[in-house]
Amino acid sequence: MKLNRILETCLYVRDLDAAFQFYQDVLGLELFSKMDNRHVFFRCGNAMLLLFNPDITMEAGKDVPPHGAYGEGHVAFYVEKAEMEKWRRHLLEHSVEIEAEIAWPNGGESIYFRDPAGNSLELASSGTWGIGNDE
Amino acid sequence: MKLNRILETCLYVRDLDAAFQFYQDVLGLELFSKMDNRHVFFRCGNAMLLLFNPDITMEAGKDVPPHGAYGEGHVAFYVEKAEMEKWRRHLLEHSVEIEAEIAWPNGGESIYFRDPAGNSLELASSGTWGIGNDE
Repeated sequence: MKLNRILETCLYVRDLDAAFQFYQDVLGLELFSKMDNRHVFFRCGNAMLLLFNPDITMEAGKDVPPHGAYGEGHVAFYVEKAEMEKWRRHLLEHSVEIEAEIAWPNGGESIYFRDPAGNSLELASSGTWGIGNDE
Repeated sequence: MKLNRILETCLYVRDLDAAFQFYQDVLGLELFSKMDNRHVFFRCGNAMLLLFNPDITMEAGKDVPPHGAYGEGHVAFYVEKAEMEKWRRHLLEHSVEIEAEIAWPNGGESIYFRDPAGNSLELASSGTWGIGNDE
């Protein structure tokens, strides 16, 4: 009995329309569902990226336990090293400011930028963790 | 050029020792690294679950952009349906209160509970999203 797959990763955003536009149009994620002012869900491979409005989800619902946070969360997406330069150009073409770039000791590279809500996003290439990123 | 893998999922916890004990001893995740009062990192399959103390990571560091949030985040782990009952018993044996259980319309099942910091954790079986959970 071992947990070996994260199925849902969450970030909190209060402007769902801005998030929807950014994650779909700039990052190219596949929309799964959008519900009023509560959430917008994207599929990312065999997992889900869930963007919630914490003002709504912190209120107790009828089924799902409440959750929500204020601040700047963080998510990293895996990117093939060969595509890193293309992503760098893609972000700049969409006027996304690259906040930092890091070359890790084990050969990985990371690019950091922000979503419209200020969440810290990262594109990280193989080698970043040395955990079989290429698997 | 498509993002199809989330490499890093984060939660924020201020008591890293309590989180370390819970995620390693109760959830059985594999420790990757622990740094003082800043973070504890676990590997989960081909991704990383990063637990950060927001008091530290919200301060600007020298390389990595600051991030951090206060509140109750959410992460879901995929669990085989056949193991759901074992997990239910396992949580109860470790005195983890099950906050909610949901049977989804498409056949998936979810169990919700909290980590010591109050983050909402979920074990979700195949069928929960209908996105090839069994892939």
